[in-house]
Amino acid sequence: MGLIDRIISKAIGRDVTPGEIVVTEIDAIYAQDGTAPLVINVIEKELNADRLEAWNRTYFFIDHSSPAPHVAAATVHREMRRFCRKFNIKLFDVGYGISHQVVVEDGIVRPGMIVIGADSHTPTIGALGIYALGVGSTDAAIGIVYGKTWIKVPETFRIRLIGKVPRGVMSKDIILSIIGTVGSDGMIGRAVEFHGDTIKELSIDARMTLTNMCTEMSAESAIIPLDERAIQWLESNGYSIYRYVDYSPSSKDFVDEMDVEVQKIGPVVSAPPDVDNVKSVAEVEGIEIDQVFIGSCTNGRLEDLEIAARIMKGRKVREGIRCIVSPASRKIYLEALRRGIIDILTEANCVIAPPTCGPCVGAHMGILAENEVAIATTNRNFTGRMGHKNSKVYLSSPATAAASAIEGRITDPRKYLS
Amino acid sequence: MGLIDRIISKAIGRDVTPGEIVVTEIDAIYAQDGTAPLVINVIEKELNADRLEAWNRTYFFIDHSSPAPHVAAATVHREMRRFCRKFNIKLFDVGYGISHQVVVEDGIVRPGMIVIGADSHTPTIGALGIYALGVGSTDAAIGIVYGKTWIKVPETFRIRLIGKVPRGVMSKDIILSIIGTVGSDGMIGRAVEFHGDTIKELSIDARMTLTNMCTEMSAESAIIPLDERAIQWLESNGYSIYRYVDYSPSSKDFVDEMDVEVQKIGPVVSAPPDVDNVKSVAEVEGIEIDQVFIGSCTNGRLEDLEIAARIMKGRKVREGIRCIVSPASRKIYLEALRRGIIDILTEANCVIAPPTCGPCVGAHMGILAENEVAIATTNRNFTGRMGHKNSKVYLSSPATAAASAIEGRITDPRKYLS
Repeated sequence: MGLIDRIISKAIGRDVTPGEIVVTEIDAIYAQDGTAPLVINVIEKELNADRLEAWNRTYFFIDHSSPAPHVAAATVHREMRRFCRKFNIKLFDVGYGISHQVVVEDGIVRPGMIVIGADSHTPTIGALGIYALGVGSTDAAIGIVYGKTWIKVPETFRIRLIGKVPRGVMSKDIILSIIGTVGSDGMIGRAVEFHGDTIKELSIDARMTLTNMCTEMSAESAIIPLDERAIQWLESNGYSIYRYVDYSPSSKDFVDEMDVEVQKIGPVVSAPPDVDNVKSVAEVEGIEIDQVFIGSCTNGRLEDLEIAARIMKGRKVREGIRCIVSPASRKIYLEALRRGIIDILTEANCVIAPPTCGPCVGAHMGILAENEVAIATTNRNFTGRMGHKNSKVYLSSPATAAASAIEGRITDPRKYLS
Repeated sequence: MGLIDRIISKAIGRDVTPGEIVVTEIDAIYAQDGTAPLVINVIEKELNADRLEAWNRTYFFIDHSSPAPHVAAATVHREMRRFCRKFNIKLFDVGYGISHQVVVEDGIVRPGMIVIGADSHTPTIGALGIYALGVGSTDAAIGIVYGKTWIKVPETFRIRLIGKVPRGVMSKDIILSIIGTVGSDGMIGRAVEFHGDTIKELSIDARMTLTNMCTEMSAESAIIPLDERAIQWLESNGYSIYRYVDYSPSSKDFVDEMDVEVQKIGPVVSAPPDVDNVKSVAEVEGIEIDQVFIGSCTNGRLEDLEIAARIMKGRKVREGIRCIVSPASRKIYLEALRRGIIDILTEANCVIAPPTCGPCVGAHMGILAENEVAIATTNRNFTGRMGHKNSKVYLSSPATAAASAIEGRITDPRKYLS
C-alpha cells in the first residue's frame, strides 16, 4: 500500500485494497469560478439542499477569470458571493490567489487530509503529504452537502528522483521529462508517489510543481511523503500535521516504479500540441515567440518569480514581445514586492498581473491571436489552450521562460545563469 | 484669442478667427487599440497609402484591452504590431501605459504642440499648454498619411479657479462640480482655458484630471497655460518647450468665463447615469458598493495612488468588496512600488492590475454584473459603461473611492484624512 492508500485506510478505520470503492469523510473541499456554477446548480437545483454538512470545510475561489473580464464572469462571481453568504462558506474573492496555492499557504490543507477540489490540478497539494483528488462538479456538490465522497482506491506508482539537480534545471524540467517518458496517459487510474534523494533538495514550491503536473500524465493523484524540509516548512508557518501516516516503503507497496536520474535532465519544453511532446530546449532553441507567461498553479510561486528576476535583472524583455507575470497569490506578490523581485521584473518591462489562472486556461489576461506562439510556465499546451485555435504554446520552467523573454525566442536559461 | 487660438495662429503663421476652418501641421498623433483598427483600415484600404508623412510623429498604444482578454483583442493587437513594423511607427505595447499619460511623462508632447489623438480624452495633455484634440479614426488616419489636420478654430471659455483647495478635496471634485454646474453639453464647440490662483497649488497630475474631464462637458479641447510649477516639472524631467505662446489674458480673449470658488467645494460624486448628475458625497453617503476602481487616464497617477494609500494604510478593503487599482503607466507603477504605495494597497487587499483602460470602458479587468454598483475614479458613468446595463457607476476622486473601499459604501474621505 502506498501513502495515499494508507491515508484512506486510516481515515475509514480499516485497510483498503486498490481497486475497491470506499466512501470517506472529506477534510476540505474547494471549487473555483470555472466549476462553482455547476456545483451551486447541483446543490440548489438538483439536491434542493438547505443545509450543507461540509459548509465549514468548503472554500470557494474566484481565480479563473479574475478580475472579471466580461459580464458572464461577473455574473458567476456574483452568484458565488450570494451562495457563500447564504451558506456561510468562506470565499476567496478576486485577487486573493489561485486555489491550490492558497489552501497550502493559508494552512487550510494539512498533511494526511483527504481533500477534493473541483479542479483537475488539485493533486498539487499532495506535495505536503495530502491525498487530493480533482473531481467533477457533481462530486464536489455531493461532498459539500454530505461531507463525504466516494473514492476508487488507487494503485500507486513510485517515482524515485535520484541525484543532484543540475544548474538551470527546475522541478518543471524534471516532471516534463517524466511526462515525456511515461506519456500523457501513462498513469491512468494510478496515484504517483515521489521518493528519492533529490526530493530533499527541492523546496515546497518546487515540489508543488511536481505533483501539479502529475495530472498531465493522467494520474488520479500525486503525493510526496513528509520529510524534514516539509516539516520545517509546516513549523515555520505554524501549521500542524493532521492525520498523517509514516511508513517505510518497499517495492511491494507499489504497482510499479521508475527511477529518474536527475543529473541527466536538462532544460526541456513540451512542444505543442501535447504535454508529452517533450523536447530538449536545444531541439527547439531559436523558435520565435510572441508572448511569455510566468505564473499559474504550476509555476507562479516565489521561487519561480525569483529565478525569473535573477535572469532578467538589468535586462529587458525583447521589444515586440510581451512577458506577463502573475504571482499565484497575494501573499506571493507581497513577498516578491518586499524582496525587490517585482521591481526587477517591472524594470525589465514585464507586465505584472494580479493572481489569476486567466492566460493558462485561455480565459483572459493575455490571450493569443492566430499564429501567435507563447512560452508559458503553465500545465497544458493543447490546441487553442491560450487563445486562437491556430496559436501555439510551449511549456517550460520559469527559468527557460525568462531567458526566452529576453531573446524573443526559445532560449536555454543556462546562458543567463552563471 | 485664447491660448489655443494663439498656438494655432503661431503654427500656421497668421492670426486665426474662432469659427474658421484651417489646415495645420500636426506635431504628434496617436491612437489606441479601440480606434487603431479603423485608422489602419482607412490608411491601408481606403487611402492605399504606402508612405506616411507623419510616421515618426505617430504613436500607437495598446492600452484599452491590455493584456488581451479575448482573441478579438489579441487579433487587433497583432494587427497593430504588424502595421507599426511595416511603417516604422512607435508602438507602446501591453503594459507600457495609457496613451495620454505616456505621451506626457515620456516627453513626446510638449508645450505649444498641436496634437490629435484618436481618443476622446486627448485634451488631458492640455494640462501642459498643449493644444490637443480628440478626433475620429478617419481624421487620425488622414493626419498620419498627410501630416496635417483640419481644425475648426474654437472659441475659448475661461474658468478661473479661486482660493485654496480644502482638505479631502481633489481636482476631480473641482472639475465634477464644474460639470455639475455647466452640464454635460455646456461647452459644445468650445475650448476651456483654466486660470486662477488655485492652479499653482495643483500638481501636473491634478491638472491633467481637470483637462481630462473637460471632454465630459463637451469641450473640444482644454488647456492650462504654463506657470512656474509646470516649467519646473518640464525642467526636472529634461523636457523643453516646443512652440509656446505667452500672453496676458483679458476677458475679451474669451467667449465667456466663470469663476469657481474652490473653498466652497467638498467631495462630490457623479451619480449614475450622467456625468453632470453631480451630488455632494453627503447626499449619497452610505450607498452600498460592490467594486471600487482607482485608475484610468483621469485618476491613475502617482498622486492618486498616494492619497489612496494614505487613506488605506493599516486598513482593509471591506470584505465582499473588491478594490481594483491600475496605475496609468509602468513608470507610475514603478515609482509607486519604490514609495511603498503598492505594498500598502496590497496589504489593504487591493487588487493591483497592470495599466489598462479596461474597467473604465467596460472592456475587461473588473466588469460589473447586473445590479452591481461601483465607485470609480474614471470619467464616465453612462448606463452599462462598466458592464451590465443594469449596473451603476458613481464617479469620484481617488480619496473618496479609497474611503468607500474601506467601508463598502460611499464615504466622505475627510473621515480618514486628519
